[in-house]
Amino acid sequence: MSVFLVGAGPGDPKLITVRGLELIRSCEVLVYDRLVATELLDEAPPWAMRIARDELGQEQVNELLVLLGRDACRVVRLKGGDPFVFGRGGEEALALAAADIRFEVVPGVSALSAVPGLSGIPITHRGVSAHVTIASGHGAGGEDGFDAAALARAGGTLVLFMALGKLTEIAAALIEHGRDPRTPAAVIARGSHADQLTITAPLAELPERAAGLPTPALVVVGDVVALRDRLQPASGPGRQRNGRSPT
Amino acid sequence: MSVFLVGAGPGDPKLITVRGLELIRSCEVLVYDRLVATELLDEAPPWAMRIARDELGQEQVNELLVLLGRDACRVVRLKGGDPFVFGRGGEEALALAAADIRFEVVPGVSALSAVPGLSGIPITHRGVSAHVTIASGHGAGGEDGFDAAALARAGGTLVLFMALGKLTEIAAALIEHGRDPRTPAAVIARGSHADQLTITAPLAELPERAAGLPTPALVVVGDVVALRDRLQPASGPGRQRNGRSPT
Repeated sequence: MSVFLVGAGPGDPKLITVRGLELIRSCEVLVYDRLVATELLDEAPPWAMRIARDELGQEQVNELLVLLGRDACRVVRLKGGDPFVFGRGGEEALALAAADIRFEVVPGVSALSAVPGLSGIPITHRGVSAHVTIASGHGAGGEDGFDAAALARAGGTLVLFMALGKLTEIAAALIEHGRDPRTPAAVIARGSHADQLTITAPLAELPERAAGLPTPALVVVGDVVALRDRLQPASGPGRQRNGRSPT
Repeated sequence: MSVFLVGAGPGDPKLITVRGLELIRSCEVLVYDRLVATELLDEAPPWAMRIARDELGQEQVNELLVLLGRDACRVVRLKGGDPFVFGRGGEEALALAAADIRFEVVPGVSALSAVPGLSGIPITHRGVSAHVTIASGHGAGGEDGFDAAALARAGGTLVLFMALGKLTEIAAALIEHGRDPRTPAAVIARGSHADQLTITAPLAELPERAAGLPTPALVVVGDVVALRDRLQPASGPGRQRNGRSPT
């Protein structure tokens, strides 16, 4: 009867919301992104139709959701992280609204704070960072509104999605526009997964140090990164779970 | 054996993570914030000790967690939203780390994207907003690093926590520092609760329109707010659940 745009969280299947999991367990059709944990797909009823969106363009996904919604199926559209943080969930919601199809947004845990947090980096911290700017590195190099000058000027904490591939250009542009090359910075790869890996370095050295890391990866720039040295749990499950690297 | 810093999500108890709920159900001590849903407190075992932190200062909370952690209790520290987004979770984590006590961070759904999303406002949207800046309005007026000039210059989407009380000063400062007074803006009160209420207006008129709204409230400034008019679901549960106001 409805299309549910559900955030799956940052990767660890236990970080989906209770409501999101309930909806998966009662869906008729599950349309999912590549980054969604297989454990979550397994929670759908055995008879539910599962559709990977890998091969589909965004326009086709929008059309598919409208088609399924019009057919009065109970559809869960499962997206990594939060549907509305660089998830293009807004485009899917607009397509459904334009077609007069009922939909509901079920927010998810975004990597934006969860992944730094699991690595021992609070994105805000009293006396260290009073504001946070988040952007996608996808468009770095010109298109898609990536504005290195604005991001460098912003100060505070900077969190970049999809920035690993263009990290050399991004770090150079941030420094060129005034960000201190010594600013503490980090790349967190495979955030919230068992093999989460964190590399920290001054901004100027980050691209070299982070070369070859796996994706997905999140880039954090700002003095809060330095808190990580003091936020290593003593030992035990916290340490292991957070997948901290020796760096 | 451990202290778990758990994010409870934005308000709706169904928006806690699966892992967060599991930890509550197996805790021995639950230390919780005022804004946490009572439904979540009821999930703790009947024999678990429940401690409201309302009357305690931050220093006292830190000391309490160290004390409980040292006593080898299984402690859940349940915080609204995400522990590391204006949640002062970093301070609690630092206190635990300094005392050599095991802890683990369990991220939560932050209001920052969830609450606008539930109101029909995607905080990022291709072609409309390529970056988002989040800040706390708590320090507006000088202290605590609130930097109206930086926030106005940032462009893109601006999301402000705890800004309702100083909204007149904040809107004036943003406009004074160059943000267009006609920028679409919104206040979302009681986000994710059944009585969620949204007011939209151009930035210059927002303080007057939002006067008297209940807290907690989130302020969103930016062109993405205008998408809300097109993101109203046709009818039915989506509409009701999102608690949309007629404005």
